[in-house]
Amino acid sequence: MTEPLRWTLADGREQLYFSLPGHTPDPVPDRRPLPARGKQMSQLRFDRQTGQWVVIAALRQDRTYLPAADQCPLCPGPSGETSEIPAPDYDVVVFENRFPSLSGDSAFSLPNTGGAEFVAAPGHGRCEVICFSSDHTGAFAQLPLPHARLVVSAWRHRTADLLSRSAIQQVFCFENRGEEIGVTLNHPHGQIYGYPYLTPRTEQMLRAAREHRARNGTNLFADLLARELAAGVRIVARTELFTAFVPFAARWPVEVHIYPNRFAHNLTELGDDELDGFAEIYRDILQRFDRMYPTPLPYISALHQYRDRDDQREGYFHVELMSVRRSATKLKYLAGSESAMDAFISDVTPESVAARLAEL
Amino acid sequence: MTEPLRWTLADGREQLYFSLPGHTPDPVPDRRPLPARGKQMSQLRFDRQTGQWVVIAALRQDRTYLPAADQCPLCPGPSGETSEIPAPDYDVVVFENRFPSLSGDSAFSLPNTGGAEFVAAPGHGRCEVICFSSDHTGAFAQLPLPHARLVVSAWRHRTADLLSRSAIQQVFCFENRGEEIGVTLNHPHGQIYGYPYLTPRTEQMLRAAREHRARNGTNLFADLLARELAAGVRIVARTELFTAFVPFAARWPVEVHIYPNRFAHNLTELGDDELDGFAEIYRDILQRFDRMYPTPLPYISALHQYRDRDDQREGYFHVELMSVRRSATKLKYLAGSESAMDAFISDVTPESVAARLAEL
Repeated sequence: MTEPLRWTLADGREQLYFSLPGHTPDPVPDRRPLPARGKQMSQLRFDRQTGQWVVIAALRQDRTYLPAADQCPLCPGPSGETSEIPAPDYDVVVFENRFPSLSGDSAFSLPNTGGAEFVAAPGHGRCEVICFSSDHTGAFAQLPLPHARLVVSAWRHRTADLLSRSAIQQVFCFENRGEEIGVTLNHPHGQIYGYPYLTPRTEQMLRAAREHRARNGTNLFADLLARELAAGVRIVARTELFTAFVPFAARWPVEVHIYPNRFAHNLTELGDDELDGFAEIYRDILQRFDRMYPTPLPYISALHQYRDRDDQREGYFHVELMSVRRSATKLKYLAGSESAMDAFISDVTPESVAARLAEL
Repeated sequence: MTEPLRWTLADGREQLYFSLPGHTPDPVPDRRPLPARGKQMSQLRFDRQTGQWVVIAALRQDRTYLPAADQCPLCPGPSGETSEIPAPDYDVVVFENRFPSLSGDSAFSLPNTGGAEFVAAPGHGRCEVICFSSDHTGAFAQLPLPHARLVVSAWRHRTADLLSRSAIQQVFCFENRGEEIGVTLNHPHGQIYGYPYLTPRTEQMLRAAREHRARNGTNLFADLLARELAAGVRIVARTELFTAFVPFAARWPVEVHIYPNRFAHNLTELGDDELDGFAEIYRDILQRFDRMYPTPLPYISALHQYRDRDDQREGYFHVELMSVRRSATKLKYLAGSESAMDAFISDVTPESVAARLAEL
């Protein structure tokens, strides 16, 4: 892949244009009178009750909220006066979030959390927006395959770049799709977070994987993939290079995990054929999602990526897709059992969801 | 407290009437032609990726969903033909959920989860509904104090009873309030779950507490309470016997924890004066919640209770209240960072929320 074109927004934020072969990005100066980016950072606070970091980002309370389509800040803005993307058109664009939960990726290490005091730290890290397409009414599932592959290249580029920054411990590419789950901009886009800590879920999965290694001598995720293949009843799609399944203990009304058949820690360790294969199966699953009901499925897509480093070595790159929709008209809400106790109760069998997705 | 009156519903479910002094419950036979309770139980599945149990309760998909007020199954049903509560009136009633996520509390122990296989087990446990009042349009916050105290007595009774059953490891009394969080019946009520395992959140908190004890020689929760009192800036209300505060690392737009000032594992270890004090401060906080915005606050209330047993000895009884409402018109959604990575990002400072709640 050729390197993206680098641009700078009016308030100094970085922007990157990723282009399809034959396309040349042609941005114009960002002429918006944006206020200088505040020095005010968010704050990390250590929740001693759970041993987890929480981000307090009070500056985000007033972020843009479902603007009218003709004021969409993610549509191309050829005048340089209306949009976050000052260009007549684009294929895929990445830029720093104007309302970041985490910012500043200079040298930083987390404070010691031993002892009994309250511990806080500046909210170092990175929050980026990735626009999948200039078409406001599109969706990832509707991208032509080479365009979907371009998004995968952009994710890979951002993963390599952000993992090289010393403040960042984990790079998380994800998409929230659908107003049902609180999406505040309808234009097809995702987000990329660089956290200055290992997220609680990742910590937990790595702990389980280390215990599994100690007990069985094998990789937890590789074993789960092999067992899902052997069981067969929850496989949704399988190619030479990738497997998609509803996991045995799925928490969500719709939940699909996608694994490369070969172990890798993150996108940067996949070869070109695997990146092609990933774009293909990922888009395939999203297309199946949108065929489940008369209206598109709201979903969260989460790329689980790890560093090739001692504490994360057992981590097996995969995607977890989940939806709160439990029927054409009903949503699953995370209420007392799930939200307060992390005790998930699912109303559907993983096998029935897998059978439905496999046939769609 | 006098013992509740025991009744039996048409399909064999247990029902308990708790009454204010001077009131005598007067139920009639439940004449509804209810189908016999199925033998079909839910299933527990072990999620090896996280080391957590997940409940698969497919039978709940068709449960009652926002019925018209005149068909409310929680309003008194003097004819015995229309309601879950076959009586002309009641104060507080508890009964087994007709669509239980967990059922059957006979002898049961969890299967071994060592090894690498998929592990499943029958969904033993208990799901109860607790009706706070016969007034369909009421709310816990609006109960007269003796009535709120009666609910506390009922919670305490159920805690003692369910903890005595061998299948049950944890008793969780909670309330989901508000359609915004998926409540399917508006009549003021809560739920009581008896889980056959320690919930993931409880496991995690107890692990943190054991580590804290090993490092500092003190109880984690008692230390947190003492530090919140010393800091002062997040205290919402304090009485001789109880303290309510927004925690230092609050995850939710509105979050309040209530602790007895004296250590106890659960409601059964509180004395009568403490139970009185608990009803008082709990109702006080819920009343403050409803004064925050023009419409009542949707919330989840979670009673964290522990057994006085080796693995749970550090557990300090408290209530965690949380709301997803982040302004008069906006909700916080748990999207990618929270739902997929358990990495919470809050848009408000705990201090500002505490100040507002303290002055209301």
